[in-house]
Amino acid sequence: MPPPKGTVRIFVESDLAEGAAVSLSSTQSHYVTRVMRGRTGDLVALFNGRDGEWRGRIEKTAKNSCTVIAREQIRYQPPDSDLWLAFAPVKKARTDFIVEKATELGATRLLPTITARSETKRINRERLAANALEAAQQCRRLSVPVVAEPVSLDVLLDAWPLERPLFVLDETGRGEPIREAISQAAGKDKGGNCISVGFLVGPEGGFKGSELDAMNELAFVTRVGVGPRILRSETAVVSALACWQALAGDWIGIPD
Amino acid sequence: MPPPKGTVRIFVESDLAEGAAVSLSSTQSHYVTRVMRGRTGDLVALFNGRDGEWRGRIEKTAKNSCTVIAREQIRYQPPDSDLWLAFAPVKKARTDFIVEKATELGATRLLPTITARSETKRINRERLAANALEAAQQCRRLSVPVVAEPVSLDVLLDAWPLERPLFVLDETGRGEPIREAISQAAGKDKGGNCISVGFLVGPEGGFKGSELDAMNELAFVTRVGVGPRILRSETAVVSALACWQALAGDWIGIPD
Repeated sequence: MPPPKGTVRIFVESDLAEGAAVSLSSTQSHYVTRVMRGRTGDLVALFNGRDGEWRGRIEKTAKNSCTVIAREQIRYQPPDSDLWLAFAPVKKARTDFIVEKATELGATRLLPTITARSETKRINRERLAANALEAAQQCRRLSVPVVAEPVSLDVLLDAWPLERPLFVLDETGRGEPIREAISQAAGKDKGGNCISVGFLVGPEGGFKGSELDAMNELAFVTRVGVGPRILRSETAVVSALACWQALAGDWIGIPD
Repeated sequence: MPPPKGTVRIFVESDLAEGAAVSLSSTQSHYVTRVMRGRTGDLVALFNGRDGEWRGRIEKTAKNSCTVIAREQIRYQPPDSDLWLAFAPVKKARTDFIVEKATELGATRLLPTITARSETKRINRERLAANALEAAQQCRRLSVPVVAEPVSLDVLLDAWPLERPLFVLDETGRGEPIREAISQAAGKDKGGNCISVGFLVGPEGGFKGSELDAMNELAFVTRVGVGPRILRSETAVVSALACWQALAGDWIGIPD
């Protein structure tokens, strides 16, 4: 049973096991004791991306510290999807949005990618990682996606694992309908649902023709289309990840 | 051929036909002549939700007026999906986001719905309609969704057309996986893809158990699940509409 909604969920680095004493960081302590008014004896939920979710009891609080004792595992660690999202950073609020939504939708690696028409070429990686952490805590996810340093499209493609399908969102109308593309990739996997894939979403101005042509030469790339309207970057991100989860990911089975 | 990206697209009320002279509103005139610096002879694109998209030429500009002559139809009016979205309004920025995204994703009627746990009970309908219009212009959609007055969940359900399937996003884990639910509804339609459906997304706190139980009694309702994570309202909206378009809507065919 998941804890009741509204229970404070905290991501920690340390191992979780029965009786483990976990010292929260000063930011987390502040959040738990000041913002959420947690007191000794109150229950919180802990996760670390490895050991599932634990019910913990606040043991001790002081000015900038808080110790929680792990009491009972309340969820097993689910196998993570292996879902990468490469995206061209856009304006700040919309990039924040991409990170929040990709976290809710189960992406495991976020790869900011600079393309020919990128107008935003820098990101604050630390801030994006903090957004991802907050979104993971909020959506009851038991892991936190990794935010990579930005790279150019060339570097991304050069380093891309050859066996990992990469779906490139193509708004020129020449992409395969996303349902076909995903069903085909998922069908190739004989072992189950957990195949490793990635999506790439370009900047507001789209990819240059030469970028699309070059990507088209790569065996791991499939260009996919998402209909007749021109979607904003963040809409394309959410749409692509949702379609993946619905057709081949963890929305198929029975939610835990 | 669609006009080049960056062409100003303007929604007008009047009929469009070859040679038709269209007077823009003062807001539109300001936008075209001041913001976009349009001059006599420049090309713009016009649509009215009925007659497709037309290339027009600026004929005359004055202080707060601008006349455009429709010259040539550049896109036919596509058959609209018939896709309703009922949603519980959330905080302002996220409600704006829902309207923008639902427009990009082809929803035709937006139905703000107040539920037991709604914290936001009022909307500025005029502002939301303006957001929808702007999003339609931007995403090259040729129609604009209607924004209805808010109603209570009871009123929504009482007035719901019995023959229109309503998919209710259910985060309790008891919904059918969204892929199954959509495939089943789309499979029932013998005539093609254009079936009429609706989605309902609750507020941040979710539906009350009694609301879900009551909806469960209605023959037109199917509760659908979108995986093990708790999605924010706007993520659920985008996910649901994207899955619909990918599986049963206008992302299936070849974009125009």
